[in-house]
Amino acid sequence: MRITVPAGGVGGARFLRGLIAEAPDAEITVIGNTGDDITLFGLHVSPDLDTVMYTLGGGINEEQGWGRTADTYHVLRELAAYGAGPDWFSLGDADIATHLYRTSMLAAGLPLSAATAALCQRWRPGVTLLPMSDDRVETHVVLAGDGDGDGAAGAAGGATHGTGNEAGRTVHFQEWWVRMGAGVPAAGFDFAGAAEATPAPGVLEALAEADFVLLPPSNPVVSIGTILAVPGIADAMRAKTVVGVSPIIGGAPVRGMADKCLAALGVAASAVGVAAHYGPDLLDGWLVDEQDKAAADAPELAGITVRAVPLYMSSPVATAAIARAALDLAQDLRS
Amino acid sequence: MRITVPAGGVGGARFLRGLIAEAPDAEITVIGNTGDDITLFGLHVSPDLDTVMYTLGGGINEEQGWGRTADTYHVLRELAAYGAGPDWFSLGDADIATHLYRTSMLAAGLPLSAATAALCQRWRPGVTLLPMSDDRVETHVVLAGDGDGDGAAGAAGGATHGTGNEAGRTVHFQEWWVRMGAGVPAAGFDFAGAAEATPAPGVLEALAEADFVLLPPSNPVVSIGTILAVPGIADAMRAKTVVGVSPIIGGAPVRGMADKCLAALGVAASAVGVAAHYGPDLLDGWLVDEQDKAAADAPELAGITVRAVPLYMSSPVATAAIARAALDLAQDLRS
Repeated sequence: MRITVPAGGVGGARFLRGLIAEAPDAEITVIGNTGDDITLFGLHVSPDLDTVMYTLGGGINEEQGWGRTADTYHVLRELAAYGAGPDWFSLGDADIATHLYRTSMLAAGLPLSAATAALCQRWRPGVTLLPMSDDRVETHVVLAGDGDGDGAAGAAGGATHGTGNEAGRTVHFQEWWVRMGAGVPAAGFDFAGAAEATPAPGVLEALAEADFVLLPPSNPVVSIGTILAVPGIADAMRAKTVVGVSPIIGGAPVRGMADKCLAALGVAASAVGVAAHYGPDLLDGWLVDEQDKAAADAPELAGITVRAVPLYMSSPVATAAIARAALDLAQDLRS
Repeated sequence: MRITVPAGGVGGARFLRGLIAEAPDAEITVIGNTGDDITLFGLHVSPDLDTVMYTLGGGINEEQGWGRTADTYHVLRELAAYGAGPDWFSLGDADIATHLYRTSMLAAGLPLSAATAALCQRWRPGVTLLPMSDDRVETHVVLAGDGDGDGAAGAAGGATHGTGNEAGRTVHFQEWWVRMGAGVPAAGFDFAGAAEATPAPGVLEALAEADFVLLPPSNPVVSIGTILAVPGIADAMRAKTVVGVSPIIGGAPVRGMADKCLAALGVAASAVGVAAHYGPDLLDGWLVDEQDKAAADAPELAGITVRAVPLYMSSPVATAAIARAALDLAQDLRS
């Protein structure tokens, strides 16, 4: 069985762990989001690829969901003593080794896909991990700047961080997400470089050869949306049976701030809203939480098979059950 | 009082600490050797500049003479787990922060001199620390490969590391010095890039404006020799009163493996040999250890004023006394 999984960071990685548990013999290819990649202190940091790699390879900091287990912060402390670079992005010492090795491989002329494969030789994540593209794609956020949190660029007001004068300014996704905590509403996202990017070697092949595609509960805008913005990937997915897992339960994201991203696009932060955003052209099946089972009757989701199961990834067992439900739905839809 | 000091690593740095103690009001400019610089894991490492900076700035690991106090090795351990890069060069986590900051400044287009100045804003070494050149100069070692330690490429034999088949191979200085422990004799040194290099901004000015120049007991071949290989520096020094401190006491280097470097050039490892190698054109005064006081009568050193004092830098007090003797000799020679 061949399964291809476009994935973002923490949510995607945890879903994948459940998927491997339920389908240990499947050949799983992960197409990782690289729009979040950022250069810090000259290091090429690929947060989503690393979160998948560390999670599946047993090196993840389980509590925070990203970064390495029991990491130390000696390098970062010293960089701060120099007053060097941004102080809002956490990089542990063990994590920095990953970025150093990746950066030196890129400097030597290797593409990101080859550098990722080299890193995975150590971690053996049990999947083929591919970046969505070897070309640089950077997710930029256009700030709305009204600070009232509803995502609408309206009357100026309030005294919150960056209010007013931030409007229209464009920042790197990580600056918005990590430094600002998405506290300034986004007016939109720009996947800089995506239109000219080519899928990394193996990406279109993995989609073409897949028995089906699963969309984990990753951020539909800045994780899955970025991957879909690389020309050729969405088309290749439309030719396949695609089953998604809703990242929204009862109107709120399970993790992260997907609602703030959806607001910028005018998409309702609901299981129905996200599925309608993906659309019936792309999506064949959609897993929602039991509290969202009414989605099965939503007219917007005509053509999408909706199934309701418990969707909180509260434990490895619960996560495996979600993966099992996704597998079952995909196999039902193919037969 | 203005003093300019071409310097290598540990010996130069310790001498400088004594010099600052004895001449606290002097404006001291250090011209640092960068021939030992090496790129490791994509990081630009400047061992000699850092040893001077850390030693004078209070961050040095006193016991080993280089690297940072109480450093940890988490990044290096992780790089080894990846099987990445060489395993014979020690880089602590705090030290890596220095290299990361330097490398990111160089990548942003700053010359090494500006990056060095930025690093020194934190360490405040009490001297103006200049690299000998902003151009890349790399000390390469041509291996003799006979393994008998006399530096002559003779009959092959023995079972020592790299014997025989290493002959003629050229390696980076650090590979010879650190990985091989200078265990394979050198047939010669190549200061690659030196002939085309320009002294860094401030170097020739510091020499022109100096009241005198002091040569610390640094390696005369691969530290001072490299600096002298940058066109313009030796000429500027010849116009000045130059007093040197012998790095050889009683036929052996005080520290390091200067004897192995001198052998490659056919220079005797003695206080007389080194002074004759520098030559009376360059050198006006020469401090030797009391056990080498016969050097004062050596015909090879005609034209060089030789003075014998205790030269072991066995304590800060002893080192300050050596610096005081060098200062006194320079001032005597100028008057």
